[in-house]
Amino acid sequence: MGLFSKDIRTLNDLFVHQLQDIYYTENQILKALPKMISKATDSQVKDSFTRHLEETKTHVSRLEQVFKMHNAEVKAIKCPAIEGIIAEAEEVAGDVEDKQVLDAALIASAQAVEHYEMTRYGTLVAWAKQLGRNDCATILQKTLDEEKATDAKLTSIAESKINLRAA
Amino acid sequence: MGLFSKDIRTLNDLFVHQLQDIYYTENQILKALPKMISKATDSQVKDSFTRHLEETKTHVSRLEQVFKMHNAEVKAIKCPAIEGIIAEAEEVAGDVEDKQVLDAALIASAQAVEHYEMTRYGTLVAWAKQLGRNDCATILQKTLDEEKATDAKLTSIAESKINLRAA
Repeated sequence: MGLFSKDIRTLNDLFVHQLQDIYYTENQILKALPKMISKATDSQVKDSFTRHLEETKTHVSRLEQVFKMHNAEVKAIKCPAIEGIIAEAEEVAGDVEDKQVLDAALIASAQAVEHYEMTRYGTLVAWAKQLGRNDCATILQKTLDEEKATDAKLTSIAESKINLRAA
Repeated sequence: MGLFSKDIRTLNDLFVHQLQDIYYTENQILKALPKMISKATDSQVKDSFTRHLEETKTHVSRLEQVFKMHNAEVKAIKCPAIEGIIAEAEEVAGDVEDKQVLDAALIASAQAVEHYEMTRYGTLVAWAKQLGRNDCATILQKTLDEEKATDAKLTSIAESKINLRAA
């Protein structure tokens, strides 16, 4: 998208722009998760991240499916938001000395990623419905539900175990 | 925080680090909201952003209160995540030509900001409780509840009116 051009004219343009943004996001998460898995020490945290890596691959495929259903080019556009969220996750992880505190930090970072995805998929579902694309909305909703479930699972692991150990 | 030093040793260090992060975030939001208010065309969207600007001032004061209660220096540390989220909001707003589509884009951007705050305050509340600081947790929870309420309000405005007009 250009600083000197106004490329978004309709809600449909905005929907496609947001699809391209989240497509970039999911692909960045695919790259970031293996590093987080290798840093985590608790096996339940490692397992959750590993499961989410598998889910993320499915999310990428679903987005490709939605692009095709909507006759839009499968394309990613650079998303400063997820880059900032991941940069911060890496920065904080690099600053933590204690392994158990690191697990708590990694969970918090993963939840920041999940929340970013939740807001974007929530918006995409609403816009898809508004555009009469209930078929696309149904697919996007599946991913939204999985992001919410991952977030809830991470809260549960943090509160039942990781924060307690870190304290 | 340095790339070559490990400054976070305990959950308490991580809690203070996260407080400094969200303190920076809230202050960035204070700067970003007036621009979003001036760009919004729908009066209900403008009002919601204006109310949230007032709330954000309270959130900043509450954080200062928590820093003091916790005997920590009131300090902000640069947070790449919120910088990315705001940069993206400004980029997208600059790309939208139609006023009604712009309102839909602004709401989506504001919700991305809210979700970032929700995840950070959620984590802070959990860590405060773990550290035996229920007094801090209670204050942070108030802000968390307000962020959630703002997010829900924005969803309601988007779905009842703005997306419909934009479509």
